[in-house]
Formats: sequence, structure tokens, C-alpha cells
Amino acid sequence: MSEDLHWKTAITSVEPNKVRLRGYSIDELMDKVSFSQAIYLALKGELPSPEVGRLLDAIFVSSVDHGAGPPSVLAARTVASTGAELHAAVAAGVLAISRFHGGAIEEGMRLFQAVARRAAEKNLSEEEAAREITAELKARGGRASGFGHRVHTQDPRTGRLFGLAGELKLAGPHVRIARTIENIFKESGKPLPINVDGAIAAVLCDLGIPAEIGNAFFIIARVPGLVAHIHEEKTRMRPMRKIHPADFEYDGPGGRKA
Amino acid sequence: MSEDLHWKTAITSVEPNKVRLRGYSIDELMDKVSFSQAIYLALKGELPSPEVGRLLDAIFVSSVDHGAGPPSVLAARTVASTGAELHAAVAAGVLAISRFHGGAIEEGMRLFQAVARRAAEKNLSEEEAAREITAELKARGGRASGFGHRVHTQDPRTGRLFGLAGELKLAGPHVRIARTIENIFKESGKPLPINVDGAIAAVLCDLGIPAEIGNAFFIIARVPGLVAHIHEEKTRMRPMRKIHPADFEYDGPGGRKA
Amino acid sequence: MSEDLHWKTAITSVEPNKVRLRGYSIDELMDKVSFSQAIYLALKGELPSPEVGRLLDAIFVSSVDHGAGPPSVLAARTVASTGAELHAAVAAGVLAISRFHGGAIEEGMRLFQAVARRAAEKNLSEEEAAREITAELKARGGRASGFGHRVHTQDPRTGRLFGLAGELKLAGPHVRIARTIENIFKESGKPLPINVDGAIAAVLCDLGIPAEIGNAFFIIARVPGLVAHIHEEKTRMRPMRKIHPADFEYDGPGGRKA
Amino acid sequence: MSEDLHWKTAITSVEPNKVRLRGYSIDELMDKVSFSQAIYLALKGELPSPEVGRLLDAIFVSSVDHGAGPPSVLAARTVASTGAELHAAVAAGVLAISRFHGGAIEEGMRLFQAVARRAAEKNLSEEEAAREITAELKARGGRASGFGHRVHTQDPRTGRLFGLAGELKLAGPHVRIARTIENIFKESGKPLPINVDGAIAAVLCDLGIPAEIGNAFFIIARVPGLVAHIHEEKTRMRPMRKIHPADFEYDGPGGRKA
Repeated sequence: MSEDLHWKTAITSVEPNKVRLRGYSIDELMDKVSFSQAIYLALKGELPSPEVGRLLDAIFVSSVDHGAGPPSVLAARTVASTGAELHAAVAAGVLAISRFHGGAIEEGMRLFQAVARRAAEKNLSEEEAAREITAELKARGGRASGFGHRVHTQDPRTGRLFGLAGELKLAGPHVRIARTIENIFKESGKPLPINVDGAIAAVLCDLGIPAEIGNAFFIIARVPGLVAHIHEEKTRMRPMRKIHPADFEYDGPGGRKA
Repeated sequence: MSEDLHWKTAITSVEPNKVRLRGYSIDELMDKVSFSQAIYLALKGELPSPEVGRLLDAIFVSSVDHGAGPPSVLAARTVASTGAELHAAVAAGVLAISRFHGGAIEEGMRLFQAVARRAAEKNLSEEEAAREITAELKARGGRASGFGHRVHTQDPRTGRLFGLAGELKLAGPHVRIARTIENIFKESGKPLPINVDGAIAAVLCDLGIPAEIGNAFFIIARVPGLVAHIHEEKTRMRPMRKIHPADFEYDGPGGRKA
Repeated sequence: MSEDLHWKTAITSVEPNKVRLRGYSIDELMDKVSFSQAIYLALKGELPSPEVGRLLDAIFVSSVDHGAGPPSVLAARTVASTGAELHAAVAAGVLAISRFHGGAIEEGMRLFQAVARRAAEKNLSEEEAAREITAELKARGGRASGFGHRVHTQDPRTGRLFGLAGELKLAGPHVRIARTIENIFKESGKPLPINVDGAIAAVLCDLGIPAEIGNAFFIIARVPGLVAHIHEEKTRMRPMRKIHPADFEYDGPGGRKA
Repeated sequence: MSEDLHWKTAITSVEPNKVRLRGYSIDELMDKVSFSQAIYLALKGELPSPEVGRLLDAIFVSSVDHGAGPPSVLAARTVASTGAELHAAVAAGVLAISRFHGGAIEEGMRLFQAVARRAAEKNLSEEEAAREITAELKARGGRASGFGHRVHTQDPRTGRLFGLAGELKLAGPHVRIARTIENIFKESGKPLPINVDGAIAAVLCDLGIPAEIGNAFFIIARVPGLVAHIHEEKTRMRPMRKIHPADFEYDGPGGRKA
């Protein structure tokens, strides 16, 4: 074979008895960093501070599961119910994490970045830029990704995430822009509170994550939840049952404190 | 419709402004637990101690990526290279985590549990039970899952994981059994060191995880690594390139200390 | 690169301006054979007669769609509803074609082959062998794959498929064995008519298809049906609707004759 | 549950002992139509003529396999090699049928439809409209989907498909437009022959298929080829081998005539 297919990768080096992620020995990382920090290292190439690790933990915890109703859970349970193996059911769930389910993170990131860029390019205040861009969005008949929720009027996860970002001194311009847009909606008489996807979007922007992998944070967070549902489906339910997408009831432990 | 499709789930309850995972408010969990602890809570139903959280962090960090060669990475990069969306490439990677790739965790768990059960049922020492079962395995022409590695003669991740389990007082009978089997192989003149999958299998048994979700820990750990490879493929490589499965070179940061 | 990864394949050769499937020019095949014949050629390596092509057409037509209720359709529609691309929704549907959905073809093939083998090995009549094997199955608490249906007491597709196999002189020992087993169930007072999966299984055995690709015939047949459902979901339904698995109604053209 | 989730579908009705696709009894269809005709019926809602069935057969046969090099095959073989089940490997292959692999059918259809629309709207000849649109495409730095091929200077499948469309009196304006664009490229001194995807695109437009399911024809055609590769991988190759994407050799039957 003459064709040269040699290629390069900057993620992980593997030599006998030595595995290095972005230059760090995996065995040393096992000792010193959390899973969330290792995820950031894998994706961004640099080790985050413990504070960034804490904030990422909060992001992942916020999205680990959201009940049995989301399409990713229904797709995963439907496949699990046919007797498919675990990985096949997980894959089906991941395939349902798409534009309208999880996609608000990437779209929210693009919105907040557009406001920041507009403010910089036209020398506007963030509020002026936000007013321009939300007006343009409205004129096009679009809606702002990351705002509003079918169930929650005040998503408890949003407050906690922004609170934590503040406490850890990690909230920056994009969190401020998200708040500014929320205020613009409130003034307009049609309040649309920031939802958890919007809050994650703002925080990821401030952490320097590129928008095109924004949804990866949702996928990474949700895979464990999918596994929990698949395992429950396989161990508690009868195969091939018809899975109602809304008529289910929680019968787990009652409310308790951590 | 007369058919009653009402069903029950014990994972997450969702009410307006209140999301509870296994009874715990998600916003409280965001404040108090790590992603790894939340994963354990989702899968097992109970909050783990911080020590268990630390050990799970080490498990997930150990498996977050293993370079560009594993089939899950090649499948994910191949799909990414066709212009597919992130979630499609992740799903293809997950589909490659199967019997011969990642599957050693579940099989290793079943091996260690079989030894423990044999010892209890026949009132044998763990070593006697391990000798019986490895002899039976050999007689059937099988091999012990979780032992031996193509690249590593002494997997650095194994030592670190068992070391940490010991320090945290979380190593129990299954870690002991894994060591016993390794010794039996060494005595036989054909040493087969415990690999990282075998070490994870032993630790998960001691943490009370059921074998049938053993591979989920590998899937959960590896999804972030897959995302890193997909992102690199999409941003650094030309679409539709032919992806050589072995002729690649690491060109990231040199060795450094955390 | 020193490692020799050279490998061989016997399916298709591609040279400039010449593509040959199993030795036949694709452009000549386009002229002379049907899709079903080309599928057989791809899978078995030899061109089937037109009669075999006809029988395969009937198999694929029989399974092209079975309404909106099967899990493959629900998984595909659920993913389509999130805004995912066509191929992602098809993949999710294929992942639901598994042990309990479509899997009866492979299992039925193994059953009929087991009866044929038993008759040959123990020099029994097919009926004696069938009685032995169904009795053993019953003793183990198993059930015969390919018999019985939730909805149809006499699946119209079964009769048509066996009828056509007879007319085309392509019904052999496995179709006979399937009938024999059906009679044994009828005598026992618990009639379990052959269903369409069982009929396909018997015919595929007589066509010399190996059991391990039996389910491929179901997958190949059903992908077009999945596409029809995905397209309907994307063009007729609102995104992210909750998809009831049973409470739907057919509103297409009334009964008509081909 | 009060929420009304009742919905409607116009594809298939299922009643006891009666399955109707778009109003036609499946058992009658089994007798009278080919798989290709049934696919058209499922997707378009009406039974095609035998001539349309023949042309569809030629389309599907043309794309059933294209050797071991395409990413869909490499993804499917990679997953199969890990010991995954057939459906998982098929799903991975389908996930690789995306923008740059198979996607030229949909894009080609949009191109040919754009030319036809431009000609109608601006009262231009098809050639004038084609010149305008290809010039605009060039000015934007785009390239015409469906033209040119890495391996074939004159794809034998293109000539056969257009020839057959002509013989069957099924070639219409879009086939003419495709030829017109090919001529424009030839005049320009940079000949880009219509490839098989472009030819399929033109024919599907003339058959009235909507562009958004154009790629479905590629997926449907290719699934059998994927199954052939998966089966060969599982029966002929060793698990977990490193699959070279180009260094393979055909060792099947030599050239032969149908």
C-alpha cells in the first residue's frame, strides 16, 4: 500500500504501562482529579481548577435525569423492552438527544455569544445588544433558546447553578447576558424565566467551552440517567409492554434530605 | 382507549419547580454531591459516601479515554467524518462498546462473584474456590476476563485503583479474589496481570453494583472521550478521510504533572 | 508501519468504471435482476433464480410495515420527533429490532433446523422429531418461536407465503416441519397458528439462508416502513409530541384492490 | 390521565387477520407487487406501475454495495468486530450514511429542483436556468452535488440508470437538467460526469419523490450490503482485528455474466 494514511491526535498517548491524557498520566489523574475535571481535560485540553470542577459537577448533576417523560428515556426504554443489549438502548436514547431535546444548550450558547459579540463590535452595552438581538429574533418569528419551560415557572436548578457560579467567582459576561435577556422578557409583560438548559449554556460560555460541543454536556450528563431507566425497564417491567409516554407515577422513596 | 397502560417508576419525580432524584431535590444534590455520587444514586437508589464517590471518580477517570485505537473511537470518528451530528457519532461509538470491548467488566464481575459464591456454598477458602473455577474455565477452553493486556504488562491504572480502594477501606472480598486469581496465574508460569477492566470489575463487585450494569460504567466513562475524538475529527481532519486504525501519532502536550 | 493489516473480502470489487458484486457487473445486474435477487446475491454469494426472487419479494413485502404500534416504529418516531436527522431515526428503529421484535425469525429457523437435524441423526420421521423437540421445549418452560400472535388468529400473510412457496416449487422440509409443529399444537387442544415470522423462518431455511442472518431479512424489509413513519412524523406531527403507543387510528385510503 | 394523546396515521391499518398498507391487503400485495413497488407504496402512498417498479429495482440494485471502503461499511464492520449483535452493527452503518456519504442524493435533488423552479419562475430555458444556478454555486465556492467521482471517470451505473429511465419512458425534466449541467461542466473544460448519486437524484425527482427522503433510497439500498459485510466480518475475521480502511483485496468469484 503506497497511500500514506498516517495521522495525528492530541488527546491521549498510549505506551506500554503508560497512558497519558493530554500529557497527564492517567494513574496520577485518578489520584488527583474528579471525573468532571477529567471530562473538561479531555474536551478542552487543560486541567481545570477545583472550582471549575465543582461547577461542572453541578452542571452534570443538574441534568443526570429528568424523569421518565423525555424522548431520550422513552426511546431507550422502548429499545430495552425488545430485549436489546444495554449499549443498544443507550445508543437509541442518545439519538433522541437532538435539536428539540437538549439542543437548547448549543442554541442558547450561540445566542449569548451573539449578544457579547454584538456589544463588542458595535460598542454597545450588553443590554443594548441584547435588546437588538431579541428584537431581531422576534421579528423573524424565532424564540430565544434556553428560556421558558412547560412544567417549571422557576426552575430550581437555574437558581442553584447561577448561585454556585457566583460563589465560585466563575460567573462572567454570559451569565450576565442571560440575566439581562430574562429581564427584557419580564419587562415585556411575557416573562420567560431562564431554564436549566439556558443556565448551563451561559455557564459553559463563561467556562470557554465552544458552542458546538455544548450538547455533549447534556449527553454526558444524561447517559447515567438513561442507564438507570434501562435497568429499571429490564428488571421491573415485562418485555414488549406498551410504554405510555405520560401516564406514569413515581413510587420511589419520598422526599429526603442529602 | 380502555386499555390501562399506567405504570410506575422509582427513579425521578418531576413536579412544578421540584425535581427529585430517588427522593433528593436535584438542586440540593447540585450543592452537595459530585457527578460520580449522583451517578451511583441514579443507578443504585442510595447516596454513596464521599469515599465511594472518590473511588467512582477514580474508576471513571481511569477509563475516560484510551487513545485513538479502540473500536469505539474508530466507529465514532468514522461516523463523524461523514458529516453526521455529534449525537449520531456518539451513538455509533457506544454501539462498539460490546462483548470484546468493555465487556470484560461484566464478565470479570461474574467470575469474581462465581468464586465468592462457590466459596460460600462449598465452604471453601477463596483460594480453593478460585483454583476450582479457573481450572474449570481452562478445561472448557475459556479465558479469565479481566486478566492480561495486549499493550500493558503491568497496567498502571490497576495498581492505582486497588491502592485507592485500600486507602479508602473499600476493598473487600472481590478485590481479594482478583488478586488471588492473579497469583494462581503467576504460579502457573503464565502470568496474566489484572487489567484495568478486571480491577474495575472487582471494585464494582465490592461496591455492590449488579454485574448486568457493569459495562454501563465503561460506557459512562468513555462517552466524554468519544466526544473529544469526535470534536477533534470534525475540527482538525478533512471529511471522509480514510481513518487508519493504528498508524497515528500523538502530538499533544508532552508529559506533565498534575 | 510494520504491522500488516492487509485483508480480503469476497463481496464487491471496485475498479475504475467497474463495480462487480460477487463477480457480476452492477450495471448488468441493474438490467437483469430485481432488488430482492440482488439482496440474495449480496448475502449468499450466488444469483437466485427468478422464482427465488419472487419468493423473496413476497417475504419482504409481507414485512414492510405492520402499523404504528411495534417498538421499532415507536423508537424511530420518538427520535424523529426530537428533530433528529432521518438516518438517526432509522438507526433507532433498527436498534429496536431485537430478540422480542423480529427475533422470532432466527429462533424459528433454529427450531426447524433442530427438528430436521434430529430426524436425520436419530433416523426419525419429521413428525417424531418434532414431537420430541416440542416436548423438550415444553418441559423446559420454553415456547416455540414463530407460533401464535396477539392480534391474528390466522395470519393472512402466512397462508400467502406458504401458498406461493408451494406454487413456485420452493417449499421443502422446513415448511413441512413448520406445518407439522402447527398440527401438533392443534392436536394438543391449544392451537398456536404459524405466524408470519414463523412462515418466513421456514421458507428462509428451505432457501438455504443461515439462521444467524435470519433477522436481517426482517431489518431489510422493515427499514422502508420505518422511513414512511419517520417522514409522516416529521411532516404531519408537531415536534416533541407525546407519542401514545396504542391510541392511534388509521385515516388513510379505504380498502382497495391492487 | 386526562390528556388526549389520540393520533392518526395514514400508513397501515391492522385488524385481526387483516393488514392493509395504504389500503391494500398485504397478502394481496405479496402476490402482485415486488419489494420495490411496496417500498414506493409505503413512502408515496400509491402503487407504482410495473415500469416504475423496474426503475426502482435498478436504483436499489445500483447502490446495494460499493465495496469495503465506504465509511458505512467500516463503521458496521468495526462494531461487528466487537461482538455486537447484527442490528447494532447495521445501526452504526446507517449512522455513517450522512451528509458526505449518501447525502449527495438529497442535495442533487434540491439542485435539479432549483433549476426546474428557476426556469419556470423566470421563464427561462432549462439550460439558461442551469447556467445561472451553477454560476451562483461557483461564485459561492460551492460544488454541484451528484457530479464527479474519486474512482470512476464514467460511472457505469449512471449510463445504465439513465438508459433504463429512457427505455421505460420515465425520464423527465430532471434527468434532462442533470444532462444539461453535465454539458455545462464539459464545455467549461473541467468535465464532472454525473455520478450514480446524481443519476439517482434526477430519476427520483422525475418519479415525484420529495427531496427530504432522497437519502432514504440510499439507506434502503445499502442495508443489505451492510449485512453482507457484517456477516463476512463475523464469520471470516477474528474479533477486534484492526480494520484497514483501504488495504484490502477482493478474493471472491472472478468476473461472470448474469
